[in-house]
Amino acid sequence: MSMIYLIGMGPGGPEYLTMQAIAALRKLDVVFILEKDGRGKEALSEARRQILDTYCEPGTFRIVTAPSPGRRPAGEDYLDVVADWHQRKTALIAGMIRDSLRHGEIGGILVWGDPALYDSNIAILHRIRREHLPALRFEVIPGITSAQLLTARHQVPLNEIGEDVLITTARRMQAGSVDGHSSAVVMLDSNAAFERIDGDDLDIHWGAYLGTENEVLVSGPLREVRGRIAELVAEQKQRHGWILDIYLLKRRRAGG
Amino acid sequence: MSMIYLIGMGPGGPEYLTMQAIAALRKLDVVFILEKDGRGKEALSEARRQILDTYCEPGTFRIVTAPSPGRRPAGEDYLDVVADWHQRKTALIAGMIRDSLRHGEIGGILVWGDPALYDSNIAILHRIRREHLPALRFEVIPGITSAQLLTARHQVPLNEIGEDVLITTARRMQAGSVDGHSSAVVMLDSNAAFERIDGDDLDIHWGAYLGTENEVLVSGPLREVRGRIAELVAEQKQRHGWILDIYLLKRRRAGG
Repeated sequence: MSMIYLIGMGPGGPEYLTMQAIAALRKLDVVFILEKDGRGKEALSEARRQILDTYCEPGTFRIVTAPSPGRRPAGEDYLDVVADWHQRKTALIAGMIRDSLRHGEIGGILVWGDPALYDSNIAILHRIRREHLPALRFEVIPGITSAQLLTARHQVPLNEIGEDVLITTARRMQAGSVDGHSSAVVMLDSNAAFERIDGDDLDIHWGAYLGTENEVLVSGPLREVRGRIAELVAEQKQRHGWILDIYLLKRRRAGG
Repeated sequence: MSMIYLIGMGPGGPEYLTMQAIAALRKLDVVFILEKDGRGKEALSEARRQILDTYCEPGTFRIVTAPSPGRRPAGEDYLDVVADWHQRKTALIAGMIRDSLRHGEIGGILVWGDPALYDSNIAILHRIRREHLPALRFEVIPGITSAQLLTARHQVPLNEIGEDVLITTARRMQAGSVDGHSSAVVMLDSNAAFERIDGDDLDIHWGAYLGTENEVLVSGPLREVRGRIAELVAEQKQRHGWILDIYLLKRRRAGG
């Protein structure tokens, strides 16, 4: 029986790893890496390399990489595109595990943030067990999410007292998901969707490249600061070739 | 100028601390502790003691404790009760810092989970700066939340593909906050509120005492397992004198 640790590596820097994650890293015989194309490619592989360099003895583990299957072009049905992409990732990772992980060995997959939030590896590992390798076991190791680093940097609570927090995507925010919520974290933006929503009663706490030397933070009433944030998004995308940003929207209380 | 680290200690065990949190712990001159009465009192102080024993040299820091101010009885207006409680906590902690933290020293407050989620210390520290100690600085250090440990243990993603996650309280769930959401984490229950909601299309992933030797997990269609979970809640409260549980509700897709 072989084992996969699905390890949340937090928002990037080695300091965000938990002791549980570090202990898991040190047991790995094989690290599986799907090399992504597109935004954040170098940053992700650099973060991963730094983490392995910091916590693992060189020569104690093998690295097995493959190019991540691309998604079919956008514009098609989103769920279909994702289902197709998951199917190809499932087959690919199952093959990598079968070919490279010997009986009784421990493999690891390092995930940005927490494996439970906007990441497909938990679903893929269940599917690998169902369709390919029924004896494979896996364990999920939580990591700090960028939402948590965002609130820490801005020194702002996620929730208002006794109220809810919505975690949503830019796509769903534009469809109105944030309406009626006092606190909403918006992830998976990259096109300044906050410019195109109603938000006279909203404050925004925005951050990009959180936890890295390029970190940028802006906070204020959405109406007043959104122009500046949109400029920063454009400027930083130009400079770095990509952007990874996240923000927390807070509804001001009537009269507050 | 003095400094306070507000440190997320995760769901309890020392293994959930991040390296950032550990580095902060090791710099502390003073650890401030409000001794809570009520549920989880011993567990919280035991978790804190274990973490300090694991990561800090004895004799390198002082511990300053005070009994946490109680809340006025429930039944009154919830926000009023909380505002009054925060005001008394603010005055108490400001006094502890003023009396015990020398100029240039670093104090720490250890918080269960993450300081940004259903915890009042961020708001209290802002208020201490406004009302009592304008020169005080503080830094927030994220911690793994019990919601993250819950999903890790159940090996289930927080969100469905491309969809939202709601983080809510039992009180708000009973008022309908979960309606229309495909994934909702419910915190601050302790009276099996999941027994009293409509939920024919919901699955529940429930856990109590997560990350401890007393951990209990149950998963399944809400209608089928809620009776068993309610029995467990009653039985475990009896056995331990308190319960700290959390659950993730997932709406099954029509036809799925």
